[in-house]
Amino acid sequence: MSDQKTRFRIVFSGSGGQGLVSAAIILAETAVMYENLEAVQSQSYGAAARGGATRSDVIISDGPINLPKIDQPGILICMTQEAYTKFSNLIRPGGLLITDTKYVQTTRKVDARQIELPLYQTVIEEIGNPVVLNICVLGALIGMKGIVKKSSVEKILAEKFPPSFMAGNQMALDIGFEMGFEYAE
Amino acid sequence: MSDQKTRFRIVFSGSGGQGLVSAAIILAETAVMYENLEAVQSQSYGAAARGGATRSDVIISDGPINLPKIDQPGILICMTQEAYTKFSNLIRPGGLLITDTKYVQTTRKVDARQIELPLYQTVIEEIGNPVVLNICVLGALIGMKGIVKKSSVEKILAEKFPPSFMAGNQMALDIGFEMGFEYAE
Repeated sequence: MSDQKTRFRIVFSGSGGQGLVSAAIILAETAVMYENLEAVQSQSYGAAARGGATRSDVIISDGPINLPKIDQPGILICMTQEAYTKFSNLIRPGGLLITDTKYVQTTRKVDARQIELPLYQTVIEEIGNPVVLNICVLGALIGMKGIVKKSSVEKILAEKFPPSFMAGNQMALDIGFEMGFEYAE
Repeated sequence: MSDQKTRFRIVFSGSGGQGLVSAAIILAETAVMYENLEAVQSQSYGAAARGGATRSDVIISDGPINLPKIDQPGILICMTQEAYTKFSNLIRPGGLLITDTKYVQTTRKVDARQIELPLYQTVIEEIGNPVVLNICVLGALIGMKGIVKKSSVEKILAEKFPPSFMAGNQMALDIGFEMGFEYAE
């Protein structure tokens, strides 16, 4: 239990239609199926979901995960202003906050590394289809933090989606990865 | 806290390709978006997922949910023999166990109401496409237990899937609902 070297607590937050639950599940499945890690993935729905700000949590570890709930995410991704307002105070001191420049105007200093990326804008300009934004977000995350290999995500994408989706997903993953990799730690 | 009248702890178990995570998410979203309930939905992935038996948990309540983890599901759905072997001893005494006749041969008595339904066989005979089996499972569950209205599930399905999917999803939901409703409590 004390020998765990890998542990990520990640919250994807935004609004209902952005596919962030799918991004979280893809990340969790990639970690488990191709990286020999353990993962717990969850979403809490309630008044917040009806109001608009949703969150989807992933914990990834090289050992058993006992507490599925994330109180302080080490990595917080905010894809709407409302999500930023609601969740940015939760971030673990010294953590990482990723926001999208189209959706979020950062208004306060949190004790975390803050990275603002034009993910939405780039997806629209280079792919023209916002439906793959969630895959771009995932690409940015793994470009920046590792967590899992990009080739492993590609395997899961190929398993989960029909072949006709692969080109768009691949482009979105590549674009996000490159943008994130500029900030790799 | 003590005035909660609605509380369901449901585990969908089976194998990775059966879409049970999606079924769980659809149920949770339906409860929250159209039934004014709270929901937590989660999956734990690990050695069990790599081995084949996966589970996806949903808790639905009319009040806040503090513990996202389900130790004793009140309702357990098993869609593979392996899932049945692995999880059927977890069921809450007096609970409900739903199994599919194609995939599961029940081998022991649990302290629960046991319902065996030919969901897979009926989906293949009447729709011809196993990809909607998960929606049929969800239909059977709500036919039997209520939890949410079928019309509310239909709204979420219409939001989440392209129109071309609606006919198959609707048929699967209807078929499942009718089969479950024969055992309604």
